[in-house]
Amino acid sequence: MLAGPKKLSLRILQDFSGSNGSLEKSPRLQGAGPHTRAGEPGVQRRHRDGDAGRTEGSKLVALFEHPLYNIPVPEVTEKDKLFVVNPMEKFSLRSSGSDEWVSSSKAETLLPTGKTAYDTYPTWLKFHVGINRYELYPRRDPLMPTLLRDLATQRIVSSVQKSGGTQLKLIMTFPNYGQALFKPMKQTRDQETPIDFFYFSDFERHNAEIAAFHLDRILDFRRIPPVSGRLVNITKEIRDITTDKKLAKTFFISPAGNVCFYGECSYYCSTEHALCGKPDQLEGSMAALLPDKTLAKRHSWRSPWRRSYHKSKKAEWELNPNYCAQVRETPPYDRGHRLLDLIDMTVLDFLMGNMDRHHYETFEKFGNDTFLLHLDNGRGFGTHSRDEPSILAPLQQCCSIKKSTYLRLQLLATQPYRLSDLLREALATDPLAPVLAEPHLRALDRRLGKVLAVVGRCLARAASPEEVLVDDVGSRV
Amino acid sequence: MLAGPKKLSLRILQDFSGSNGSLEKSPRLQGAGPHTRAGEPGVQRRHRDGDAGRTEGSKLVALFEHPLYNIPVPEVTEKDKLFVVNPMEKFSLRSSGSDEWVSSSKAETLLPTGKTAYDTYPTWLKFHVGINRYELYPRRDPLMPTLLRDLATQRIVSSVQKSGGTQLKLIMTFPNYGQALFKPMKQTRDQETPIDFFYFSDFERHNAEIAAFHLDRILDFRRIPPVSGRLVNITKEIRDITTDKKLAKTFFISPAGNVCFYGECSYYCSTEHALCGKPDQLEGSMAALLPDKTLAKRHSWRSPWRRSYHKSKKAEWELNPNYCAQVRETPPYDRGHRLLDLIDMTVLDFLMGNMDRHHYETFEKFGNDTFLLHLDNGRGFGTHSRDEPSILAPLQQCCSIKKSTYLRLQLLATQPYRLSDLLREALATDPLAPVLAEPHLRALDRRLGKVLAVVGRCLARAASPEEVLVDDVGSRV
Repeated sequence: MLAGPKKLSLRILQDFSGSNGSLEKSPRLQGAGPHTRAGEPGVQRRHRDGDAGRTEGSKLVALFEHPLYNIPVPEVTEKDKLFVVNPMEKFSLRSSGSDEWVSSSKAETLLPTGKTAYDTYPTWLKFHVGINRYELYPRRDPLMPTLLRDLATQRIVSSVQKSGGTQLKLIMTFPNYGQALFKPMKQTRDQETPIDFFYFSDFERHNAEIAAFHLDRILDFRRIPPVSGRLVNITKEIRDITTDKKLAKTFFISPAGNVCFYGECSYYCSTEHALCGKPDQLEGSMAALLPDKTLAKRHSWRSPWRRSYHKSKKAEWELNPNYCAQVRETPPYDRGHRLLDLIDMTVLDFLMGNMDRHHYETFEKFGNDTFLLHLDNGRGFGTHSRDEPSILAPLQQCCSIKKSTYLRLQLLATQPYRLSDLLREALATDPLAPVLAEPHLRALDRRLGKVLAVVGRCLARAASPEEVLVDDVGSRV
Repeated sequence: MLAGPKKLSLRILQDFSGSNGSLEKSPRLQGAGPHTRAGEPGVQRRHRDGDAGRTEGSKLVALFEHPLYNIPVPEVTEKDKLFVVNPMEKFSLRSSGSDEWVSSSKAETLLPTGKTAYDTYPTWLKFHVGINRYELYPRRDPLMPTLLRDLATQRIVSSVQKSGGTQLKLIMTFPNYGQALFKPMKQTRDQETPIDFFYFSDFERHNAEIAAFHLDRILDFRRIPPVSGRLVNITKEIRDITTDKKLAKTFFISPAGNVCFYGECSYYCSTEHALCGKPDQLEGSMAALLPDKTLAKRHSWRSPWRRSYHKSKKAEWELNPNYCAQVRETPPYDRGHRLLDLIDMTVLDFLMGNMDRHHYETFEKFGNDTFLLHLDNGRGFGTHSRDEPSILAPLQQCCSIKKSTYLRLQLLATQPYRLSDLLREALATDPLAPVLAEPHLRALDRRLGKVLAVVGRCLARAASPEEVLVDDVGSRV
C-alpha cells in the first residue's frame, strides 16, 4: 500500500483534539439548512442521483422532495464535525512533475483564482471532511455523483489484499490517493444462497454492497459509505500492478482460458473458489474508504442481538423473550437514541436479509451520541424467496421505533414511493446495472409489509402509540 | 468396519496359488457359450436388465441380441478365473440363531435339497467368484438384477469413511456381508461443472458413477463394477450406525432443518460443502466392492496419457505429437492388447467427459493379459455443452482401435441402437431415475460422432484399414 494518502490527510485534516481553530470555509462544510445549501446551485440538483437526465417522472426525485426527507438535521457545530480542516493546506500536484499529490503548506486560504483550498481537494477528501455526528454524507449531497463516478472510473494504481475478515477483499488506490474497498463477484445475480447454508458461511456479494448503499440512502439513514459497481480488469488492474506477492501468486489461467485468482483468506480462497474474469473482466463493488483509523478512530460495538456463529448454539436473545428489557438497562442502550438507531439498522438488515450484523461501528470522537456505521453488507440480498423474521428480533422484542423511520417506511409502502421502484431506479445508474435481480427487488416490498406489521402488532398491544413510536421529529413534519 | 466378510471370503475363496484343485460346479462358473448359459433359464432373460416387463420394443434387448454383442469370449480355463472355490464351503446362517453369516466347513458339495454350496452364496460373493481374465461379469449376467437390487435395498448395518481419495466416500455393509462404496450427491443433475474449474477440483458425481456402469456395459466392456442409485437416510443409515467418530462429529442440523454432514477429506469436507438430506434422505451411488485386495491383489497403472494435475504444466503427451510411438515401445504397451484396451477406456471417458483417468487397475493374478478395471468414474458427466477432445488423445495419436469396438460404436450411432436411447433405457430401471439430465444423454450421440470421425480421419490417412482397425474378432462376426 502507498504511504502517501495517510500522510497527506494528516496535514490537511486534524482531529478535534488538535484543532487549530481555523475552520475551512467551503459552503458544504457549513451547517446550511436542509432544503438548500449555499454553494449548491440548482443545476447540481439534476446530478444528485448520478444521472442528469432522469428527473422526469423520477420517484427518487419525488422521494427526496417529500417533507419526510427534508426534516432538518440538528445544527452541525464544530464539535459535531469529524475533522477540523486546516484552511492553509491546498491539495496540489507536486511541481516536480511526478504524479504524486502533495499538499502545499504555502497555499493561501483564498487562491489567486478565487478558489478556496477546499476546492483543490479531491472528492474523496471532501467526503471525509463532510462527515459529522449525524450523518456520513448530507441529503442531496452534490459530491455524490462525482464520488460514485470516481470509484467507477478512476485509474487504479495499486491493489492489495485487505487483512482481516474471512473473505477476500482488496484495497485499491487511485492516482489522487483516494481508496476503495473492492469486493469481487462470487455469485451471479440469479443465484440464491442454498437453504442449508449458515449465515456465517454465506458468500459476500458485491451487488449486496452496492444495493445496501442505495437502500440505506432511500431509508434516509445515510450510514453506509458510497459504493459503486465496477468492471475491473483483473490482469491490468490487479495482477500487473499489485505489490502483494501472496496475492500475485494465486493468479492462474483457467481451463476455459480465463484469468483467475483466489488470494489468501480463511473462507473460499482456493482453486475451487477462484474468481475468474471473462477473460479478465470481473465485476466487483468499490466502496469509498472511511478516513484512516489513525485520523478518525472508530469504536466497534458488539450487537446485543448478535447471533451465536455456531451451528447449533443459540444466542441469549433467541431464548429470552424479555431480552430487550435487559438491553434497555445496559449502557449505551440505557439512554439517548442508541437502541432506536440499532432498530433502524435491524430494519435495513431485515429488508435485505442480512443475518451477519455481529458488530457495528461509531466514530469515537462523537461518543455515544452519534449515528451507527452500517459497514459490511455483503451478506444481504442472498435470498429473495424467504424472509428471516429473526433479523427483526430487536424491533419485535423492544417494540420501539423512531417515528421518523416509521413514517418513512409507511411512505415507502405506498405506490408513488414504492421501495422496490425507488431502489430499481437508484441502481439503474450503477455501471453494473441491473445490480439486483427482480425477485430481490420484489422481496423488499414484501418485507417492508412485514416490518410495518410488526410495528402494527406493537401498536395494537401498546397503551398509547407513543410507547412504540418514539418522537424524533416533533413539529418538524 | 466388520471383520466378518474378509474372513468368510477367505474360507470360500482361494486364490490361484492356493488352489486345491476342486472347482465349484455351478453352471455360471463354467465357460458356457455366449448365447446361452446352462442354468440360465429363459425366464431369467426377461430379468436381465432389472425390469421384467420392458422387453417389448426394448432397444437394449435388441442390442444385446445383436451379433456384435454375441462374439464369443475366449474359453475361461481355471487359470483365467480370479478365484478357485472350495466346493465344500457352504454359506449359511449360524445355527445359534445369531444373524451372523458363517461358512460351514461341514457342508457337502451337493446339499440334501439338491442345491450346491454355490447356491448358498450371497449374490455379491457369486459376483466375485465369477470374475475372470476377460470380464468383470458376463453378458446377460443372471446375477445382475439381484446384484443391483441388493445394492439398492439391502439393510445397511455399517457406514464408515473410506480412506484415500480426495472426496468423501463411505463403505457401507449389508447383513450378508456384502459391501458397497457410497458416494453422496454433491451436484444436482442440472448443474454443469463451471468452465473455469480444473478436472482435479471437479466434484465427484454420484450419478456419473451410476451412468458410467451402464454405459460401460452398453459398450460391451463390462469393466466397471455394478452401481445402483439409492436414496439413503443419512440419519438412520449413516449417523446412527456409524462407528466412525470422526464422521459422526461432522453431522449437524442446517438452518433449513435438514440433516447434514461433511466428513473428513482433503476436498470439499467443510460446513460450506456439507451434504444435506431432505430432511435426511440423500441420493447416492452404491457401487459393488471388488474382492478385498488381500484376496485378489490389484496392480495400479499410471496412465501414459495422465494429465499433469497442475494448473499450468502440460504433460508430455500434450506437447509431443509422436508420443504414441514412444508408448508403443514401452511395456506393457509393446505387446498384447493393452494399448487397445487403454484406447477403449479413452472412448468411454471421452463419451462421458471424464478427464480424471490418471490410473487404471488390473487383477495381478492375470498378469498383463487381462481387461482393465474402469474404477472411479465420478468425474464423468460434468458437462454436456462442451466436449473435451484431449481425452481422445490416445486414439488420435495412436490411430488404433479394436475392430470390435469400432463396429459397436458404428452400431451405436444408428437409429435402432442409438447410444442415448440405450443409456436412457438402462438408467430408467435405476431407483434414482432419471439418472442423467437429457442434455447429457444427447451429448453422448454428438461425442460418439466425434469418436467415429477421429477413426475416420485415421482410416483416410492409413495405407490399409487394418493399420487402424486391429482385428480382434476374425471370422466371429
